[in-house]
Amino acid sequence: MNHARLETILAKLKDRNINQMIISDPYAILYLTGRFIDPGERLLALYISGDGAHRIFINNLFTVPEDLGVEKIRFNDTDDYLSLLCGCIKKGEPLGIDKNFPARFLLPVIGRSGASRFELSSICVDEARAVKDEDEKEKMRAVSAINDQAMARFRGLIKEGVTEKEIAAKMQDIYTSLGADGYSFTPLVGFGPNCAKGHHEPDNTVLKEGDTVLFDVGCRKDDYCADMTRTFFFKKVPCEKHREIYNLVRKANETAEAMLKPGVRLCDVDRAARQVIEDAGYGPNFTHRLGHFIGLEVHDFGDVSSANQAVAEAGNIFSIEPGIYVDGEVGVRIEDLVLITEDGCEILNSYSKELDIVE
Amino acid sequence: MNHARLETILAKLKDRNINQMIISDPYAILYLTGRFIDPGERLLALYISGDGAHRIFINNLFTVPEDLGVEKIRFNDTDDYLSLLCGCIKKGEPLGIDKNFPARFLLPVIGRSGASRFELSSICVDEARAVKDEDEKEKMRAVSAINDQAMARFRGLIKEGVTEKEIAAKMQDIYTSLGADGYSFTPLVGFGPNCAKGHHEPDNTVLKEGDTVLFDVGCRKDDYCADMTRTFFFKKVPCEKHREIYNLVRKANETAEAMLKPGVRLCDVDRAARQVIEDAGYGPNFTHRLGHFIGLEVHDFGDVSSANQAVAEAGNIFSIEPGIYVDGEVGVRIEDLVLITEDGCEILNSYSKELDIVE
Repeated sequence: MNHARLETILAKLKDRNINQMIISDPYAILYLTGRFIDPGERLLALYISGDGAHRIFINNLFTVPEDLGVEKIRFNDTDDYLSLLCGCIKKGEPLGIDKNFPARFLLPVIGRSGASRFELSSICVDEARAVKDEDEKEKMRAVSAINDQAMARFRGLIKEGVTEKEIAAKMQDIYTSLGADGYSFTPLVGFGPNCAKGHHEPDNTVLKEGDTVLFDVGCRKDDYCADMTRTFFFKKVPCEKHREIYNLVRKANETAEAMLKPGVRLCDVDRAARQVIEDAGYGPNFTHRLGHFIGLEVHDFGDVSSANQAVAEAGNIFSIEPGIYVDGEVGVRIEDLVLITEDGCEILNSYSKELDIVE
Repeated sequence: MNHARLETILAKLKDRNINQMIISDPYAILYLTGRFIDPGERLLALYISGDGAHRIFINNLFTVPEDLGVEKIRFNDTDDYLSLLCGCIKKGEPLGIDKNFPARFLLPVIGRSGASRFELSSICVDEARAVKDEDEKEKMRAVSAINDQAMARFRGLIKEGVTEKEIAAKMQDIYTSLGADGYSFTPLVGFGPNCAKGHHEPDNTVLKEGDTVLFDVGCRKDDYCADMTRTFFFKKVPCEKHREIYNLVRKANETAEAMLKPGVRLCDVDRAARQVIEDAGYGPNFTHRLGHFIGLEVHDFGDVSSANQAVAEAGNIFSIEPGIYVDGEVGVRIEDLVLITEDGCEILNSYSKELDIVE
C-alpha cells in the first residue's frame, strides 16, 4: 500500500464523515497497491477503514505478490465471498461506495452489511488521483514521449491505397517496438468524412487525395496512459474551408494551453477554446468537452468542460482537444496532454501541430 | 430490437413479478439491438417494460444507426441524464436491475426513481442468452473454425529462443489475416512453469527444451467469441510425470465431452472430469471450474462447476477445460468449446488433442 496516497483518501473521507469505504475500481486499487488485477465478473474489493483494519478481497485465481501491504482475504468461486466482505463492514456506520461497484455486489451489500447508509465516495479517491506525485509525473512524461515518437511512425503509414484498418493493425507493433506495454485505448483512425464521427472505428475506407487523416492514439507504459490526436492532410488541402477549420482548431488548442496555470477555472479554459471556434461560426461543430483528466486511466475523473468550475491545480494532467466536425465532410481534432506546474503548464506532447500535407 | 429475444426476457421477468428493467451491460444491449456501444464511464441504459414503453439512453458522442427499433433518448455530458432515466421508471413498482449497473448510477436511481424495490434481474437476460438461436450457432461455429486455423499458425511460432511476448505479439495479425475482427481476450502464452500460473501474462521468458507451451487463445468475429487451449511440448517430454499429466488432462477433457447431452447436470460433468484427475492424485492441482458459457462474451453467464446443478440444454455453448498445475514446474490445460444438440453435443474445435512434441 502506498501510505501517503491512502492517508490522503482517508482524510478526504473523514471530511465527509465517512470512516470506511469499499474500493472496487481496479485502477483505484492499482493506485493504492501498485498491482493491477482485472477481476472480470469476479469480486475484487479493497476495504479501507479509519481504524486501519484494511483488507483486500481477491479470488484465488489471481496471482498477487505475497506482500501487498494489506491483509489479503482469498476465496474461490464457490465460496460465500459476499458474507466475508459484509462481515468486515462496521454496522450502524456509513459506508463509502466505489462509483464503479456493480449492482450484483452492491445490492447484496445494501441488504446484508448493516451499514447505516451507502454513499458514493469515489470522489475522495479521484481527487487524490487528480494531483499527480513526482513518480506519476515522470511516468506521464515518459509515456507521452513514446506517443510522440509513435505519431511520427504512424504518419509514415499514410500512403496511396491504404485503409484505416491496415494502418490501425500496425500500431500495436510500433508501440511495442518503442518500449510501450500496449495501447492505452483502441486507436481511432479516420479518413475524410469518417474524421467527423465521434467514436469511429477503423474500417475498410480507402485513403483518397484531399482527405484528412485523424489519429487519436495512445499507449500505456508502467501503468500510465498517453493520449494525443493529430490530423494530417493527404496530398493536398482540398479547399480553403478545410484549411480554415484546421487553423481554427489549432488556434483553439493553443489558446487554451497558453492560459493554463494553477487557479484558472477549467470551465474558462473550455470557454476560451470554444470561443475561437464559435467566433468563426463553427460552435455547433465542436460537439464535446475540451478535455479530460488522465493518468492510470485514459479517462481519469475530471474534465475540462463548461460544467466544471473547479480550478486547475499543480499536478493536474489533462487533455486539451478541441475539434470541428462537419458531418459527411471533414473532421479535425488536435490534442495534447498538459501538466499544470507551479506557475504555468508543461505540454507533455511535442509532436508538431503545423498543418502537414503528407505526399 | 430482436423481438423474439426481448419477448423471452420479458416473459422471464414476468415470472418474477417484475414488469420493468434497466439493462446496462453493453453485451446485453448488443444481444437485443444488434449494436455494441462501449460507453466507458458514461451512461448507457436500455429500459424495457411489459407495456412496450422501451427506451434506450445513449450519449450523443456515440454513433448509432437511425433505427435501433427502440425510442432513443440522446443526451450530452452536461445534461441531467439520470433525471431523464428516472422519469421513465414506473413509480411504486419493482424495478429489475442489471447486475453490472454501476453504483454511480444505481445509488441515484434508488434514491430518486420511486420504484418500490430494486432486484437483480440479469438472470432473465442471461438465461435467454445461454440458449443460442440458429444465427448464433452459425457464428460460434465460424469463429471457432478460425480459432482452429489460428492454433496451427501459433504452433508454427514455437521455436528455439523465442519469448512468450514475441509469440503473443504476432497473434493479432494472424487472427486478422484469417478474417477475425480481433481478440476475444488477451492471449495467454506460457512456457514451462509459467503454464502453472492461473492468469499469467506473456513475459520475456525464453523457451527451453522440455518446456510445455500453453496457448489459451480466442478471437472475435461478427460479435461472437472463440476460446480454446492447447498445450504443446518443446523438443521433448522431459519426464514420465509430465506425459502422465498431459494424458490425464486429455482424458478428463474427453470424458466430460463424451457425456454431454440435454439433461445432464453440469455439476456431474465437472465431477466426471475432476474424478479422472483426482483418481491419479492430482485433485488439488485442478484449481478451477471445468468450464464457462460463452457467446457475445468470453465469459457469458453460467459455468460448468461443482456449484451448478442446472442441466445442459440444447443450444448451450460452453467450454470444457480441465487442467493440472504443478507450481513452479509444469501446467497443462486442454479446452474446447461445445454446443449441446438435441441428442448430444457438437465439439466446435477440431484442432488435435494428441500429445504434440514440436521440434
